[in-house]
Amino acid sequence: MVDKSPLAPKVFPLMPVISGVRLAVGTTEIKYQGRNDMMIAQLVSGTTVAGVYTRSLTASAPVEWCRKALGGGQAEALVVNSGNANAFTGKAGDASVKRTVEAAAALFSCCPSKVFVASTGVIGEPLPDEKLTAILPTVQEALDENNWEKAAQSILTTDTFAKGASCTADIGGTLVTINGIAKGSGMIAPDMATMLAFIFTDADIDSKSLQDLLASGADVSFNAITVDSDTSTSDSLMLFATGLAGNDKAAPLDDFRAKLSELLIDLACQVVRDGEGASKFISVTVTGADNDGAAKRIGLAIANSPLVKTAVAGEDPNWGRIVMAVGKAGEKADRDKLAIHIGGIAITEGGQVISGYDETPVAKHMKGCDIDISVDVGIDVGKATVWTCDLTHRYVTINADYRS
Amino acid sequence: MVDKSPLAPKVFPLMPVISGVRLAVGTTEIKYQGRNDMMIAQLVSGTTVAGVYTRSLTASAPVEWCRKALGGGQAEALVVNSGNANAFTGKAGDASVKRTVEAAAALFSCCPSKVFVASTGVIGEPLPDEKLTAILPTVQEALDENNWEKAAQSILTTDTFAKGASCTADIGGTLVTINGIAKGSGMIAPDMATMLAFIFTDADIDSKSLQDLLASGADVSFNAITVDSDTSTSDSLMLFATGLAGNDKAAPLDDFRAKLSELLIDLACQVVRDGEGASKFISVTVTGADNDGAAKRIGLAIANSPLVKTAVAGEDPNWGRIVMAVGKAGEKADRDKLAIHIGGIAITEGGQVISGYDETPVAKHMKGCDIDISVDVGIDVGKATVWTCDLTHRYVTINADYRS
Repeated sequence: MVDKSPLAPKVFPLMPVISGVRLAVGTTEIKYQGRNDMMIAQLVSGTTVAGVYTRSLTASAPVEWCRKALGGGQAEALVVNSGNANAFTGKAGDASVKRTVEAAAALFSCCPSKVFVASTGVIGEPLPDEKLTAILPTVQEALDENNWEKAAQSILTTDTFAKGASCTADIGGTLVTINGIAKGSGMIAPDMATMLAFIFTDADIDSKSLQDLLASGADVSFNAITVDSDTSTSDSLMLFATGLAGNDKAAPLDDFRAKLSELLIDLACQVVRDGEGASKFISVTVTGADNDGAAKRIGLAIANSPLVKTAVAGEDPNWGRIVMAVGKAGEKADRDKLAIHIGGIAITEGGQVISGYDETPVAKHMKGCDIDISVDVGIDVGKATVWTCDLTHRYVTINADYRS
Repeated sequence: MVDKSPLAPKVFPLMPVISGVRLAVGTTEIKYQGRNDMMIAQLVSGTTVAGVYTRSLTASAPVEWCRKALGGGQAEALVVNSGNANAFTGKAGDASVKRTVEAAAALFSCCPSKVFVASTGVIGEPLPDEKLTAILPTVQEALDENNWEKAAQSILTTDTFAKGASCTADIGGTLVTINGIAKGSGMIAPDMATMLAFIFTDADIDSKSLQDLLASGADVSFNAITVDSDTSTSDSLMLFATGLAGNDKAAPLDDFRAKLSELLIDLACQVVRDGEGASKFISVTVTGADNDGAAKRIGLAIANSPLVKTAVAGEDPNWGRIVMAVGKAGEKADRDKLAIHIGGIAITEGGQVISGYDETPVAKHMKGCDIDISVDVGIDVGKATVWTCDLTHRYVTINADYRS
């Protein structure tokens, strides 16, 4: 693994036990040598599941499987491997998934439709699934309630640090726990990214409500980040609820919804902080748009602009490129009301730079690691925040050399 | 000026006289020191004009002016400066344009609505138009029919070479000449780019037909190229027809249309060959799409993908990233019929890599300067070709340092 991103959190968070979830990792050596490159999770019988997957039309075989399996609404096992995405592998890829799922179903004595799978890594190479299924019985023996960090590490590819988050939420007076792990570094963009995220909770929530909670949380988190505007064939975000917390199923889920969204934003921002070659974390907030969707599209036009991203890399307060990006977004914006702030400092008003504008404090803000851009486009009350990172020499180095 | 792009044509082409067109250049020192940074063209009375401009919603003051002036359909002067885009300069920018246009109109004794203007360079800084208008009388004295290369040089910004093209076309048995000059290097994407292109012909064509010819030519040329997916606030493509060739105005324009499109494609591809940091010129041809528009969108998804562009920079035949880009384009594609060729060599069939695929000849092709990617998506007969360049360290260097 290369040097850890300068934007990485200092430590992996403490992750409590989630009743009904056990994890284990193993080494298939499908691509990587001498490191854990697969994980399994066993979920207590009765666990409900929700999933949000890539919108790519060339989605991977595991994604296609999960979309179908989601119909049952229940999960008892999750099998993930890194290093090979099993994407664009044709019918051979579908067969690989089938064999993997059947092996896991036999091991856990469950129906194959309760086994979920995810693969991340190289596109277009057949997955030697026999290496995966061969070690399943041994890995099963290592299942444990405390393997969160190991699991988070095993699913990494070009990532430089393991990503985890944990929180609690109140459902009708009962405290429930939510744990999440994620991976993703390159090919990150809505909808969604070479991004895998697995969320586990002991809350008791039916699968339909769970799907609604996850979809709305994904909108403001994993679907609001971009590293390089590219969309992976493998993106998978799944939420498993074991139900063992024993909360009142009729109680309102407002607090759970809020806490879940916060946790998803936390994980999504960790992915951006590990963006390939990232040296700056950029928050882009757009207000005053025609509606929230328009605000998000303007935000993403700014966040995806190579000229904005290279300017940030160069610590250059080149706000003209932000004007350009707003202009290209194709959404309503009033040039003469456009208000751009960087680091909280007002730069434009009345369709031009503020009279007597002093670049010094903006230049100082841009030397930091966390860059805040906000733009009011002067139309209505639509708003959105999206996150991205800068575009650096290291991005080019990583992607001109690595076969992802 | 930095080193010339390795993809530049060997020489600037021979450009014949266009009867009714005289050009001159001058030095305003608005931004650049010690080089020509402005040009004027005088057009014989009766010259018709067509224009295609940026779709940016934050278009520059000169673009807004030209859009209005186009209504008259006639031109007698063109004034262009480089180094300052007069974009996002509010009402002060509009006033700058007005003063420039009025000065030129007085000089050429024509109506202001027959004066066209274009500016390229830094966004957001007021244009000191007095520096431009002050030298107009002196520059006027230098007007000459043979200043094509000087004019092409005067409009450059981050470009590394002057761009010109010339051809002849047959209208009803009369040979007419078409000359074009262009600039553009960064912020190049549909629709359109920090791209200026001025085309001149001695053909006698009414302004309505001229507009139709230019719009259809732009679709397959300047609107089919991308360097970095960013859209400029200043893009302007104009076509001036002096009418002095004396062709039959009732004759069909088929040959003119074809030759004009070829010339526009030539200039557009020169812009790509001067793409910031470019080391490879990439042609992406998409066939088998639902329709031509879908083919173009798939082509642009491939051409704009940072992962595809960095793979080309690294000479890595990573066709999995092309699969990814097709998948993210949002247009119909049949995964199991997807046929990817690089350098004419078939790579995929049946939804996976061709059995016994040998990467050697593809890797060899990728070491060249001209990379050909073709993709058939297996749906219908829609097709399109788009052009781009690779994403290199030099792109980052140029854009993290240069205030554009």
